[in-house]
Amino acid sequence: MKPFMGKDFLLDTEVAKELYEKYADMSKIPVIDYHCHINPQEIYEDRKFENIAQVWLGGDHYKWRQMRTNGVDEKYITGDATDREKFQKWAETLPKLIGNPLYHWSHLELRYYFGYQGHLNGDTAEEVWNLCNEKLSQDDFTVRNIIKKSNVKLICTTDDPVDSLEWHKKIKADTSFDVKVLPAWRPDKANNIEKVDFAAYIKKLSDVSGVEIKDFKSLKQAIRVRLDYFSENGCSVSDHGLDYVMFAPATDDVIEGIFKKGLNAEKLTNVEIAQYKTAFMLFVAKEYSKRNWVMQLHYGCKRDNNAMMYSKLGPDTGYDCINNYTPAAELADFLNELSKEDEVPKTIIYSLNPNDDAVIGTIIGCFQGDGIKNKIQQGSAWWFNDNYMGMVNQMKSLANLSALGNFVGMLTDSRSFLSYTRHDYFRRILCQLVGGWVENGEYPYDEKILSEIIKGISYNNTVEYFGFDLNKA
Amino acid sequence: MKPFMGKDFLLDTEVAKELYEKYADMSKIPVIDYHCHINPQEIYEDRKFENIAQVWLGGDHYKWRQMRTNGVDEKYITGDATDREKFQKWAETLPKLIGNPLYHWSHLELRYYFGYQGHLNGDTAEEVWNLCNEKLSQDDFTVRNIIKKSNVKLICTTDDPVDSLEWHKKIKADTSFDVKVLPAWRPDKANNIEKVDFAAYIKKLSDVSGVEIKDFKSLKQAIRVRLDYFSENGCSVSDHGLDYVMFAPATDDVIEGIFKKGLNAEKLTNVEIAQYKTAFMLFVAKEYSKRNWVMQLHYGCKRDNNAMMYSKLGPDTGYDCINNYTPAAELADFLNELSKEDEVPKTIIYSLNPNDDAVIGTIIGCFQGDGIKNKIQQGSAWWFNDNYMGMVNQMKSLANLSALGNFVGMLTDSRSFLSYTRHDYFRRILCQLVGGWVENGEYPYDEKILSEIIKGISYNNTVEYFGFDLNKA
Amino acid sequence: MKPFMGKDFLLDTEVAKELYEKYADMSKIPVIDYHCHINPQEIYEDRKFENIAQVWLGGDHYKWRQMRTNGVDEKYITGDATDREKFQKWAETLPKLIGNPLYHWSHLELRYYFGYQGHLNGDTAEEVWNLCNEKLSQDDFTVRNIIKKSNVKLICTTDDPVDSLEWHKKIKADTSFDVKVLPAWRPDKANNIEKVDFAAYIKKLSDVSGVEIKDFKSLKQAIRVRLDYFSENGCSVSDHGLDYVMFAPATDDVIEGIFKKGLNAEKLTNVEIAQYKTAFMLFVAKEYSKRNWVMQLHYGCKRDNNAMMYSKLGPDTGYDCINNYTPAAELADFLNELSKEDEVPKTIIYSLNPNDDAVIGTIIGCFQGDGIKNKIQQGSAWWFNDNYMGMVNQMKSLANLSALGNFVGMLTDSRSFLSYTRHDYFRRILCQLVGGWVENGEYPYDEKILSEIIKGISYNNTVEYFGFDLNKA
Repeated sequence: MKPFMGKDFLLDTEVAKELYEKYADMSKIPVIDYHCHINPQEIYEDRKFENIAQVWLGGDHYKWRQMRTNGVDEKYITGDATDREKFQKWAETLPKLIGNPLYHWSHLELRYYFGYQGHLNGDTAEEVWNLCNEKLSQDDFTVRNIIKKSNVKLICTTDDPVDSLEWHKKIKADTSFDVKVLPAWRPDKANNIEKVDFAAYIKKLSDVSGVEIKDFKSLKQAIRVRLDYFSENGCSVSDHGLDYVMFAPATDDVIEGIFKKGLNAEKLTNVEIAQYKTAFMLFVAKEYSKRNWVMQLHYGCKRDNNAMMYSKLGPDTGYDCINNYTPAAELADFLNELSKEDEVPKTIIYSLNPNDDAVIGTIIGCFQGDGIKNKIQQGSAWWFNDNYMGMVNQMKSLANLSALGNFVGMLTDSRSFLSYTRHDYFRRILCQLVGGWVENGEYPYDEKILSEIIKGISYNNTVEYFGFDLNKA
Repeated sequence: MKPFMGKDFLLDTEVAKELYEKYADMSKIPVIDYHCHINPQEIYEDRKFENIAQVWLGGDHYKWRQMRTNGVDEKYITGDATDREKFQKWAETLPKLIGNPLYHWSHLELRYYFGYQGHLNGDTAEEVWNLCNEKLSQDDFTVRNIIKKSNVKLICTTDDPVDSLEWHKKIKADTSFDVKVLPAWRPDKANNIEKVDFAAYIKKLSDVSGVEIKDFKSLKQAIRVRLDYFSENGCSVSDHGLDYVMFAPATDDVIEGIFKKGLNAEKLTNVEIAQYKTAFMLFVAKEYSKRNWVMQLHYGCKRDNNAMMYSKLGPDTGYDCINNYTPAAELADFLNELSKEDEVPKTIIYSLNPNDDAVIGTIIGCFQGDGIKNKIQQGSAWWFNDNYMGMVNQMKSLANLSALGNFVGMLTDSRSFLSYTRHDYFRRILCQLVGGWVENGEYPYDEKILSEIIKGISYNNTVEYFGFDLNKA
Repeated sequence: MKPFMGKDFLLDTEVAKELYEKYADMSKIPVIDYHCHINPQEIYEDRKFENIAQVWLGGDHYKWRQMRTNGVDEKYITGDATDREKFQKWAETLPKLIGNPLYHWSHLELRYYFGYQGHLNGDTAEEVWNLCNEKLSQDDFTVRNIIKKSNVKLICTTDDPVDSLEWHKKIKADTSFDVKVLPAWRPDKANNIEKVDFAAYIKKLSDVSGVEIKDFKSLKQAIRVRLDYFSENGCSVSDHGLDYVMFAPATDDVIEGIFKKGLNAEKLTNVEIAQYKTAFMLFVAKEYSKRNWVMQLHYGCKRDNNAMMYSKLGPDTGYDCINNYTPAAELADFLNELSKEDEVPKTIIYSLNPNDDAVIGTIIGCFQGDGIKNKIQQGSAWWFNDNYMGMVNQMKSLANLSALGNFVGMLTDSRSFLSYTRHDYFRRILCQLVGGWVENGEYPYDEKILSEIIKGISYNNTVEYFGFDLNKA
């Protein structure tokens, strides 16, 4: 029996262990987290946490969801119980999550940051609570120190076009902290014409951009202004949260008519919404292409499915699910439209529906080119799929259908500063997969090539693909 | 090479073997079969079988289907060949079913009930025929004795709301038999407004309930009367066979109009059918919630696909297939509607489409609560998925997305009294999966926690979740 | 560590090795390639290749696609670079394709045909180039000799109904070459009424058949004439490339109206196109049934997704993707319609969408019969799925849902004369799967039965199912 989550966790073959130790270990090969949801203000202010419940349970709806699944009362989740009480309920829930990534993530964090080698459950909650809180009270457990301890070189946050990027500027100006913290552009609010706050948002965008937005044409101008502003502040990455990638082309006149209705908060048909969103996405995609930005497309999610809880807690509280309406044809047609004038930007595609792996793997193959290695990428297994099985399936599918060697690999998508060990989790799985192939005679044991592949997927491919100003490992 | 289906069948690691022997072996940990299609009359009358063909081939359309697949003439399947001839054809078909669950199920039954250690094929058919028939002629091979031999504590049959439950009452009154045999409520005929026999069925329901059904409102009253009757007879479980879980809300007036057309056998549009079914399902779900019943939703099946054979043999004869129209959004919206007033009952969701595992795993996470462990469950791999791969995939998906430790586990869904070894098959796969994780350092070797998980999924979770009046193991 | 792609490549257990050596090795058990796209003229003329780039990169859009993925300039793919330069770029791309079937296919070909035991990459490109070209210059590397070296007994090409079959006739008449080269019937152009060249094609079909086609009725007559002609020339296999299998029934009058519009190149609605295609497919299926032909249905592909590249290179150049609109219900209804009068032909179903495995596995089970073993088959993992994972998944799914022992197994679907080693790849995976089951006690070690299964799936089942005039192995 292997020890529980020991040194060789998830590494079974000699080759896997060797690849991990030499070319993937986070202490040797640094981390780029090109997509996450952490708050740059907390980095600038170098926040300190009072206790482990604050870090783990303060905003992590993955954990909330599983506590509810285990029958824990909402009082101990988002309610007014004490932090210690909440931590106890989480500790009691954890053993039920056998096979769940949260089980591994939690223990990786306990090992990596706190040196705890046991397993957390109701009985050990007290010792873990004390150990973690003692460490968290030390000065080297501030946000900045956690980031440095994790060997992170670059972080992309997630930011709205109207954001001032104030904290990014301050971090950049602070020479005492040399990790790059860059904004990423997420213009969902300008795309979601059907939402009640659309007109108010457009007003805000007018104000911030200095462009009076009275039609779709001037919206585009305002967007361009903000794109330039983000570029000036180091941004080269966009992100989109879409129901699915739509393709419903329409004339400029039709789009202007729909936009006007949107501004007036008139009811739109589904066709109109799809037409507007198609026009918006085609526009921004072309802008990204001009600027050599990366476009990230995230889709396949149905959000806020529990009306009662939504009214109490709002969005991003653990009530989302996978949607299986993800038409391959529209995704292909959308990219095809861009290909007509050679305006497909570098693109990373993520579906929350794991059944889409093969569809994505074949669609990306239709739009490669321009001398860029895997100009179109399938993104790492996302959110609900961010587990051993999901990652292995995504990588095997990508290997079968594309060039795994060019994969830009892992990101955390996290709201927490302790999540960098998910990169370690991913790298172990990568080394186990590749090492297994080599051990099994399916790929040659050629150290030069293998080191390039493992370091590439762990770090170097990301530097090259995004064009980040970092040295390769 | 491991012996063919020996003691350690499907158990490869030491931990898997230990978990199985201590906490899953059917002789130690009893069986609850909370969903099957056996005939309670045969239990009450303690039926005896003349030969193994009668048990195996009398009504098992799984086997019929594979015999047809192997080119066997219908004469030897549902035709007038002798039982011995039919058995020979089945024996000759079996070796072709390499990798098929029927191969394992058949041999598990041969080992468990008849002590046969060889493998059945054309050459061994005669010895197996003689062995089985000799055993079946003995008194301890009556239906009741088979059930007891299988260490079954409780069975839920499948029953129509108009059923008198006569046999359940008689079994209950018979103190010589202490296995609980409870009815389960399956009101499909009241939901299927588009079927030709709808009006006739409603008439029958009127008669049985004593409520004159002249509109949807009085239908609901009749249903309530029968729900109470089923409750009085120990029922706490419902079951629904749906094309897919629909959500097409409509006003009461619209529903009344549709119901009237249904009673008059007028042609209904697809929208009308969906609206009626939505209204019906919302109504019964709320009734289940009030009564603390479990709602089982089975969907993703397209039935009776061979018109010629249907005209000869009728339904449930081996001509069904998986449907892949199973919109996640409507399932989520249906449950969301119930959540508004906190009326989601305990629910178990089963899709016949194995691609739905991840969708279901994330939807159930949106409606957990009320202090119940996994109030919403994903059901065990069902029907065509009830095989090694299907069960492993369902459990891995459930582990990734929910709390596997709370899973209510296996049921047979069977029409046969020899099918209880499918519980053994499931438990071996469960122990192999969990044991593998432990052996591989992915979960700690903590006997207390592991025994709770294995006994829980094998038996105890079911007792607790359904609230059955049984002691825990 | 196993040697890279050595003798026991993909064979891990003793049973797997034994089964492979005795019952699957291509030198002992011959090959039938019942579905490919090679040019019969090249066989008749016994073409010789100048260099390995010509064989590998002349028309193989699988390889082109991956070179583009690796950022190779189109000049080195379909452009005017020299063959040596193109080969270099391919060699440099190959290591990035870790886990990709092209990596294995390429090295299997290097081993089997050229005796090269190393691994191809930028550094070894020169030695591989020289070695291969030296061999290709020898007389035993003509097309016919490659085919004989591969122990191929029978090949089915892919042919249009208007094809003269001139080369098939010449090959048949040439007594110096005893491999059967048979035509396969692919009438897509008569089905694709929405295409711009439909009317022109129908004119050609009129000319070739001698039947003046002025309506759907006379089209059917012309088709029958050509079916007879193909039959006379040894054809017993059809093939269809469909978006998806449709079922939109309409009256004869409606179909005649649509056909008239098609001939006049009038714009057709999607419903009309589906109705015409349904009528066409029902008609040909019934004709196949009468003639005891095999009907192959290939669907789930969306073609030509890159408008700019299509305008430069045309179809079949590496710009296709999987489509996920593959409604199970229409496929089942289409076959059901044929079942009404017992007119379902022998049918092999292939979807490009790997998520369809289970759907297909259950649909085929609804239409078996007529004393034929697996009259309805699920085809081997196709195109993008033709890799280790895809083949294992297809076989496991088939085993779970049907009778794997009756499977007709592998085909190359290839445009290249070096692709027969894909049969070797498939057979290794088959033996690994079956050998693993036996080693693990999931199937008995019964040499007689196992040899029948392995030889059957490798060769004999195909002889029997298609009724080819060949001895069994």
